[in-house]
Parts: sequence; C-alpha cells; structure tokens
Amino acid sequence: MPNHAYIPKYQLTIDKILLRAVQQFPDKEIVYKDVLRYTYRDFYRRVVRLASALDAIGIGKGDKIATLEWNTHRHMETYFAVPMMGSILHTVNLAMAPTDIIYVLGHAEDNAVLLGEEILPYAEALAPQLETVKYIIVSTDKEDLELPDIPGKEVYEYEALIRDYGSDTYEFPELDEDTTATLMYTSGTTGLPKGVYFSHRQILLHTLSLIIQFTYEGFTLAPHDVILHIVPMFHVHAWGGPFASTLMGQKQVLPGRLDFGLILKLIEKEKVTQMAGVPTILYMLLNHPESKNYDLSGIKMIVGGAALPKGLYYEAKKRGMKIIQGYGMTETCPGLTSANLKPGMESLSEEEKDEIFLSAGFPFPLVEIRVVDSQFNDVPKDGQSIGEVVAKAPWVAVEYYKDPDKSRETYVQGWFRTGDVAVWFPNGYLKIVDRYKDVIKSGGEWISSIKLEDYISTHRGVAEVAVIGMPDEKWGERPLAIIVPKKEYEDKLSEKDILSHLEQYVEKGVMPKWWLPDKIIFTNELPKTPIGKVSKRELREKYIR
Amino acid sequence: MPNHAYIPKYQLTIDKILLRAVQQFPDKEIVYKDVLRYTYRDFYRRVVRLASALDAIGIGKGDKIATLEWNTHRHMETYFAVPMMGSILHTVNLAMAPTDIIYVLGHAEDNAVLLGEEILPYAEALAPQLETVKYIIVSTDKEDLELPDIPGKEVYEYEALIRDYGSDTYEFPELDEDTTATLMYTSGTTGLPKGVYFSHRQILLHTLSLIIQFTYEGFTLAPHDVILHIVPMFHVHAWGGPFASTLMGQKQVLPGRLDFGLILKLIEKEKVTQMAGVPTILYMLLNHPESKNYDLSGIKMIVGGAALPKGLYYEAKKRGMKIIQGYGMTETCPGLTSANLKPGMESLSEEEKDEIFLSAGFPFPLVEIRVVDSQFNDVPKDGQSIGEVVAKAPWVAVEYYKDPDKSRETYVQGWFRTGDVAVWFPNGYLKIVDRYKDVIKSGGEWISSIKLEDYISTHRGVAEVAVIGMPDEKWGERPLAIIVPKKEYEDKLSEKDILSHLEQYVEKGVMPKWWLPDKIIFTNELPKTPIGKVSKRELREKYIR
Repeated sequence: MPNHAYIPKYQLTIDKILLRAVQQFPDKEIVYKDVLRYTYRDFYRRVVRLASALDAIGIGKGDKIATLEWNTHRHMETYFAVPMMGSILHTVNLAMAPTDIIYVLGHAEDNAVLLGEEILPYAEALAPQLETVKYIIVSTDKEDLELPDIPGKEVYEYEALIRDYGSDTYEFPELDEDTTATLMYTSGTTGLPKGVYFSHRQILLHTLSLIIQFTYEGFTLAPHDVILHIVPMFHVHAWGGPFASTLMGQKQVLPGRLDFGLILKLIEKEKVTQMAGVPTILYMLLNHPESKNYDLSGIKMIVGGAALPKGLYYEAKKRGMKIIQGYGMTETCPGLTSANLKPGMESLSEEEKDEIFLSAGFPFPLVEIRVVDSQFNDVPKDGQSIGEVVAKAPWVAVEYYKDPDKSRETYVQGWFRTGDVAVWFPNGYLKIVDRYKDVIKSGGEWISSIKLEDYISTHRGVAEVAVIGMPDEKWGERPLAIIVPKKEYEDKLSEKDILSHLEQYVEKGVMPKWWLPDKIIFTNELPKTPIGKVSKRELREKYIR
Repeated sequence: MPNHAYIPKYQLTIDKILLRAVQQFPDKEIVYKDVLRYTYRDFYRRVVRLASALDAIGIGKGDKIATLEWNTHRHMETYFAVPMMGSILHTVNLAMAPTDIIYVLGHAEDNAVLLGEEILPYAEALAPQLETVKYIIVSTDKEDLELPDIPGKEVYEYEALIRDYGSDTYEFPELDEDTTATLMYTSGTTGLPKGVYFSHRQILLHTLSLIIQFTYEGFTLAPHDVILHIVPMFHVHAWGGPFASTLMGQKQVLPGRLDFGLILKLIEKEKVTQMAGVPTILYMLLNHPESKNYDLSGIKMIVGGAALPKGLYYEAKKRGMKIIQGYGMTETCPGLTSANLKPGMESLSEEEKDEIFLSAGFPFPLVEIRVVDSQFNDVPKDGQSIGEVVAKAPWVAVEYYKDPDKSRETYVQGWFRTGDVAVWFPNGYLKIVDRYKDVIKSGGEWISSIKLEDYISTHRGVAEVAVIGMPDEKWGERPLAIIVPKKEYEDKLSEKDILSHLEQYVEKGVMPKWWLPDKIIFTNELPKTPIGKVSKRELREKYIR
C-alpha cells in the first residue's frame, strides 16, 4: 500500500500505563505500610517531580539508576519515573552477596544509586569501589536522617530531592518504544550474575498479555481487586504487578521490607484480595505465629519461582486461599505460563482442578512454548516424555548484556532456551520436572533427577536423596543416587532395598526400567546451597570428578 | 545499551491469534447457522487450505481480495487466511449502492472477489466494469451451484477451491508487523466512500486492548462466553469480535445473513451470552414476532454505531439483557471507548449505572481522547461544555487511502479528528452530543443541534424537529429550527410558543440563553436519508443556500 502516515507512529511506551491510570482512576489508592496512603493523582505528581529532579541534578537519557530498595512507594515511583525520562532502571537483588552487588553495579556502569537507609552504612564502605556512580539517593521513612559525606559522590535524601529540585511542569520526552527501560541481573547458581534488559515495548506488551491471561477462570484478576505487592520489587519487575495493577486501576498496597506480622495486618486492614510470590512467602504467611488470627479466605495468590509443594498448596487451600502456579524467569520479563483453567474446564472435579493449578500452566497470549529433545524436535504431548522448555515471546530478553558466549548458548534457532525441563500434557499444560543441567542424559533419552528422587524418597528408610548423572561410556550418563538414611535405618539400608522398592514403580508402569540407578551411595549429609537447596554442583565435585 | 539481539524481533501479526487458538483451545467450536459446526482445529486446517489454494491460483503478497459476504464461517476463514498470507482483506459493505461498490473495488484495485452466491447475478452483470479483478470466488451453502462463465475472470466455488487447490502443509510467510492486513471504505453521507487500511500490528493491539477493556465490571467478557457474531463482518472487523473471541478461545456462532427468526433460535440452542450491534439490531431482536418466546436474560450486548435511545435500553433491560454503549468508527479499527464501570462504581445506584451504560464510556487501554474547541484547547470536563472528540491510539488509521486532501483535514497536530462532538464528565465518561458538521458554531462557542432538538421536542405540539446553523454576520452561525407540528397543532403552533417553552430550560439553567433559535420555520415534512435519518444536508440546501 502507498503508505503515507499523517500521524506519528504510536509508541508502546510505559508512560501510556501511567497516563491511563491518572486520567481514568485518579482517586484510586496506593498504600505504603501503615505509614502513608495517597491517590494515583498524587503518585503521578510525585513521578513527575522525581523525574524532573533527577533531570535537574544531571541524570539524563540512557543513564542507569540502580535501586537497592524494598517495596516502598518510592521504589514504585522509580519504576515509572526512570524509564519515562529515558533513563534505565537497574533493580538490584538485595539477596545477592555484597561482592556480587559491587560486580553488577560496575558491570552495568550505573550512574546513580537509590538505596534504602538500612543499606547506607554498606554504601559508605563500598563507595570507593563504585567508580561510575556519581549520585546516591537515600530512601527513608525518617524525617531527620543525617546524610553522610561520601567522597566523590553527591548524596541526596529522596524527599528533599523531589521537594528542592522537582517541578510539577516537567514534560517527559517522547521515546521510541525500543528504548531500554530496565536492566537486571540473574543470580545463577554458578558463575557471575548475568544481565538482561527490557525495552518499553517489551514491558507494555507483557503487561497487556498478563492481564488477559488472568481473565481465565479458576483465577481471574479484576480492576476492583486489591493487590499486595509482596514479590520483591528487585525481582524482575515484581513479576509485572506494579505495571499491570496501575493499568487496570487496582488499589495497591506496598509492604516495604517483608515483615509478615505487618503483612497480615495490611491484608486485613486494606482488604487485600490478590498477591504473588515464591512458595517460601506462602509458607511464611501460613506459618507466622499470628497467621491463624487472620482470615485469608478468598485471597488469590500466584506462586512461582520454584516448584510449589503439594502439601503447602493444600494447607493454603484449607485456609480458603486460591492458589495457582505461574512460570517464568528473569530473562522472560518474567511471565510465560500460568495454570488458569481453559474455557470448558469449569466442570472438572476439585481434584482435577488441583492438578491443573499445581502445573506450570499454559502460555500467556503471544507466548509460544515448545518442549524439545536434544535434537530440538518436539517431544510428544503425553505427560511422560521429557524435554527442555524453549520459548518465544515479545518480551524475551534479546541477549545477555555484554556476554556473547552465554547469549550464543542460550538463543538457538530463534528460540530462548529456559534451561528448564518439562513434560507436556495432551491438554496443553506444562509441568516442570527438572533443570536442564540436572537432568540425566542417558542414551539420548532424559531422566528427571527430581522424579527419580521422588520415587526413592517414598522408601520409609530414606531421609534425603539426590540423584545426579555420572559419566558412562556406553550411555553418556547414568543415574547415581546419594541417600541419607533415617536415623533408625542407618547401616540397615542396602542398594538392593532401594532397587527392589523402585521395581514396584517399574511394574506399575509409572517409571521406565532404564531409570533404575546404576549406583547408590549412602552418606550422613547432603551439601546445601545458602538458601537450603541440595547443591548438586558440590555432589558432582565430590562423587564424580 | 549495546543492543545485539540474538533472536529475531517478535512481530505483532495476526497469525499469533490463530496459533494460540488452535494450540490452546483446539476443541472449541465455531457454529455456522444450523448448517455446520466445527472445531478451532478444523478452522485452522481450512484457513491453511484456503491460503494455500489462493497462493496456488496466483494470489500473492500485497494482492487485495474483496469480500462481498455475510457472516459465514467462510468469511471468517478469510479474516485470517488472507492477511496471514500477506494479502489484504478488503471487506465491502453490502449496504452500499451498486455504483459505490463498483467505485470501491476499482479504487482499491482489488485482484480477487469473494462473494456470496446471492450476489453472483449482480457480479455477472458488473464484471466488465471490474477491470483489476481476475478471480471470483463464490461462497455458497449449496452443493450443486452451477458456476457461470464470466469473460476474463476465473470463477471458483469456495469449497471446490480449497479441496482441489489447497494443501495441509502450506507454510505462512513471516510478515513484518506493519504489513497491511485489511482495507475498508467508510460510507460517508456526502461524497465518495473513503478508504482506510490497518496493519497486523494495529489489529493485534486493538484485540488485546478490547479484551482488557471488558475486564471492567458492569460488563465483563470471559473466555467461557459464547459470542454471536451479529455485527456484519463487512463493518470494520465486525468490531473486532472475530479476532478477540479467537484469541480468548470463546465458542463462536455465525448467523450468516441477518435473519432474526434464526438468530433467536441460535441464541437459545447455542446458549449465546454475548453480542454487539447497532441499536437497530437490538430493536429487531426485541420486536421480532417470535421474540417474546425466547429468554434473552443474561445476554450481554455492546451497542454502538449510533446513539442508543433510552427507551430501547430500558426495553432490553426489562428482558434481562445487559446493554452498554461502545464508541468508535471505521477509521479507528473501531474501538475507542466503552461504558463499563470503573473500579469503585459497583456500589452506584441502578439509575446512576444506567446513566453510565448509556454514555459513550471511557477510553480503552492505549487510547487517548481529548474533547477540544475550535482552537484545539481542551474543553472543561463539566458535562456541559461541547467540543470535538480527537483521538490517539495504536490502531487509528494513518491516512485516507489515496486521498491526501481528506487526510490533511482529518489529522491535526498528531490527533485524529473524529468529527463527533461531545461533552466530557468529571468522572471521565464521554457523551456524544452531535456531529461536528451539524453543530452550530455561534460566536466561537458551539451549540449542539441534537440537544436543542431534544428541548424543542418536549413541547407537546411538536411531532418532529431539526435544528441547523444559518449564516450570521456577527456570530458566524445562529440556530434555525425547522418544526413539523402534530396534526392537532397544525396552524396553531407559533414561534412564540416554542420560544417561551424553551425559556423554561433557560430559567432552570440547563440551556444557555444564547442557544434560543433566531428563526423557526414550520413545515409538513422533513427530508430523510435512505436509512430514515433526517437529512440535514437537504435542509441546508432548501432553507439556507
């Protein structure tokens, strides 16, 4: 077509989210702990003032601002102000080791750091190592915090900054939708953190798709829901919550640092109906000493980031909560799939629905998922065959920042390799069964270490078990099981006991015979990572290399 | 950021809608009248065969295919197959005059025409005038339709075409998201029809936004809803229904040509829950002789295209239907606003909700609306001040096809002028009060001809009234009222009666004093357009020029 446009191309930028919010829902509330509540109108005004203040002190387009901060209203203001002024928001994971934090600030070449006051002492100590950082902005609830002198850095208190340098009439620049909006680092279990970045377009499309995915039954989110932002805002866009809620016009509650006593109070007081988080968060919520005094019924929670244990799911269900799993990762913005019901599934039995909700779900709109074998062929959708999950979506990060080797390894034939291993059911739902690096590649076929561990753990003498692959000349790899027996079974458990226990599953047809471990080792203890998971890396070092 | 992408840019193309549908909801149904029902899986297969058949007979990328067809499953197959193969779907309005149809086929330079068999006789007669058209494809429910020989044209029957030329293994080309997908003509009241076209990106973004807008209370659409496609598919993408329903995975019902007896039967049999249409369609549905025998309660309907009369709204409400207004036009793909409730409005009284539902609503996500005066300044959001509606959205057509004059007049300062005149309420809802060309521009201020007609029509002696602007040296324009008195008031009604009647409204403060007509003419009859509206163009010709 002869294409002469009489209007400029519409840009899919983040400001469109906030403009809708302030124009259509100006009186909706954002609540910060028991400290503050204000309207979307106020929020917008502060975002404008923050951007103009940052502009006034010298931060410009393409500059990077790192945040080391919990879920405060100030952090949420940076979510909009920084990308909207054309700068890049680098959310730093506070759970990283200090050396990693220094590494990522240097690797990103951040120009400014916004940090919570509790981090200020560390910042003072580390400042000399943060060469590119010129500005330090301190976020605090205190009115009389004394700011330190830090050689070579300009130090501002957030409220004073927007009061003294901000303007109500600042105009945001018009940005191209492909402008980078955010940057963050994944904390892999091995090696240095890897950076990924997202454009305005990616974040906006992720927001639209996420909202549509949660129009599906079993777990619908609506504009009148009240969201508690409990996913740390330094985890990949707080899983998209702040953007999606703002676009919809939901009431939003920010709990600051995670304090489950306060969180329970906020849930009751603000009538929270919706949240998201890792299984540990759900566990903490249910098992807090005060938990039983609060009514959690009707609260909807999306659980992701790690496999949701069945027991925890049922515990939450008993409290009246509605739980489903979602799946994604830092590199994917993060949403890929969630376990809503498809139309027509409303009539399933309660047990069948539980199975659905405990799966990883089906893809968001615009997400394409495949489960592929090592030759990149699709595995059958039979709920049995194992393959790696690969994805396409408008919001998949396009590379690892300044890391071509890792990028080349991860992006294959136009697809993003998630590193997760799954089965795919005939109904289109996905179930994650392992990490790619932990799966045992035997004769071109894959054995899920996690599934095999599950079967072994049902023996009454087994306290803990880990399965790893050991090199095998003929098969490539074969399973090695490392078992910690229960106290009363110490010295009584034999390789033969375990194998004959497993034979049952083979006979029942749930486990292929070739999954039987070639070797079983008994020990007193399994090495753990700092967050309490079994460290398969250390096991491999100890028993294989 | 150093931006090296290791994956190709994700394209926002229409195939993403259909791929999701067939992968995630393969067993959902599409029903065509009482003639046929098939699954999304079948639908997808037929879309592939149609595209490959078109490709095989010689239709390629950029070629234009006109459809002259009602709401059949075949028409819906072209909605996907034609744009997905890189060709352009030109839906032709069957309500246009034959001369206009010939005009638009020529102006568009269509390469092929798909038409319903009932149009075939006309096509035979008109064929010599359709110079660019090489292929004629006939859509019919009959199995033994005899095809005519038409000199210079290849004539195919649709089912034979996809059977004999189609392939199941055809692969759609990878398209850029800015590829033109559709073309259509607005049938303005004056002058020749004007063409507008839409890209894949525009249609996909419109689809996402439309679905999100209907997550708002008062009128939510869900994946388990059953949609009846009653908006003619030759009206701007059937208002987006086929694309949105397919993405969500809804059951879809196609009624063919509008036959309200059959439509009522389909509503009952297929358990329809959702539809859209102009007020006339709603009127026909409620007033069909069989209507009272059917239960319409719970059915949701979006009404647009013309102002919804209050009486009709309440009539539908009495039948248990849920009705809201939507607003948009051909040039806007079409969705701009709809009258859903904003979060927090659930607690309004029934009467207050009725007022909301009868307004034009608030903007869809990503749509920006302003109401501006002749200097392009925003009018106050006071529910009184009148201005023209101007819009920005990713899916606003970027020009009138091959019509730079009309384009330059319509696109101003980056905004699309809708030609509609509205008031804007403090709560952000819009109410359309006139067409720009009918509004009376008096002393730089605007008088809504429709509002003034409403006030005059409340006089018990008035049967019909039209208000037009007459030239005035001092004020630019002043109102002239043309009144048809009721039989019993003939020769009894005076200008003074009308003016003193209107003085009441002035005293009450609902109508400004300067709105009082300068002149009133009494007559027997008002000239009408073919669709029964008062023709203000003819009135202006008769009383002013």
